[in-house]
Amino acid sequence: MSLPLLEQLIEAFRVLPGVGQKTAQRMAYHVLEREREGGQKLAEVLAKAIERIGHCEQCRDFSETEICAVCANGSRERQQLCAVESPADRLAIETATGFRGVYFVLQGRLSPLDGIGPRELGLDQLEARLKQGEVNELIIATSATVEGEATAHYLAQMARSYKVRPSRLAQGLPLGGELEYVDRGTLSHAFGTRTEVQE
Amino acid sequence: MSLPLLEQLIEAFRVLPGVGQKTAQRMAYHVLEREREGGQKLAEVLAKAIERIGHCEQCRDFSETEICAVCANGSRERQQLCAVESPADRLAIETATGFRGVYFVLQGRLSPLDGIGPRELGLDQLEARLKQGEVNELIIATSATVEGEATAHYLAQMARSYKVRPSRLAQGLPLGGELEYVDRGTLSHAFGTRTEVQE
Ligand SMILES: [Zn+2]
Ligand SMILES: [Zn+2]
Repeated sequence: MSLPLLEQLIEAFRVLPGVGQKTAQRMAYHVLEREREGGQKLAEVLAKAIERIGHCEQCRDFSETEICAVCANGSRERQQLCAVESPADRLAIETATGFRGVYFVLQGRLSPLDGIGPRELGLDQLEARLKQGEVNELIIATSATVEGEATAHYLAQMARSYKVRPSRLAQGLPLGGELEYVDRGTLSHAFGTRTEVQE
Repeated sequence: MSLPLLEQLIEAFRVLPGVGQKTAQRMAYHVLEREREGGQKLAEVLAKAIERIGHCEQCRDFSETEICAVCANGSRERQQLCAVESPADRLAIETATGFRGVYFVLQGRLSPLDGIGPRELGLDQLEARLKQGEVNELIIATSATVEGEATAHYLAQMARSYKVRPSRLAQGLPLGGELEYVDRGTLSHAFGTRTEVQE
């Protein structure tokens, strides 16, 4: 008889990003040897988070409630809408800059080969928002990758068609860099010197 | 209102070895974005493993049952007892070698400054086992670190006092390793303990 539960646990850890067989094994042993209480807490919180955390109806960011805290905050300036690729990017901007507007979380970037088109990024919802007339600047904070730039181009065109001014974070972001890994200073500077997107 | 559950989840992931704030955040987002099913499975298996996996009464390795599969296996040679520091080390030996004896898992190594003495390593239990007279060789497979060597020295003395032959894994150049990439200590040791080439 083997130890199926231990093997199951090692296998289960591999669902985490960047975790291969060796690391998964180390995690399982570490938790069982030294962190049973913390492991139990992780199991509980993980199950609860998966059950309860959905997406904000307005901005598509993660939220436990129908409308997230930022969207529900009456003191945020709703004329400035900042489009980001992911919740992590939204958090990075919120933490690093003094931005007081609201967000739209694409949850990805245009990538036709992977089947990720406008629908998958909720662009119909974004379009309806721009159409309403409340927004006057769309700050496009997609990453400086090929797909991020293509997404930015698409969003800029959409914004212009509703007379919304599109802007893009200033160059200064490392080329090819993922936004969430950019240091605070660079991110804050790039955010502050964003430029209007020219036709 | 913030997102306490998401923050709790990020915090909970930090219990895993080598996982800091940034990695924990990436794990939480990854699971919520792309691996909800796998995350749920991880939560379940983790809770179950922590509840059910204890230690084998004979060898102290992880086990779901009172006696682990290796110790319960009647065809293993109980005269050869191999002492290892951790379940991972036991698994490595079991996988890499043809060893057919049994194990004793110390769950650590002697480290008086950290409060890890003979009692913490279950050495009273190991001593009782050597006393019984069934074991004739104690293979000491502790690591080649200062503490591992000190532990090996302690175990060797204990073995001798019960007329059990202590042995230690050979140290030297890794098989297939380029000489120039071997660390100084290993190279020096291997040179000093060179053996005559037999015809
Ligand atoms: Zn929202
Ligand atoms: Zn056992």
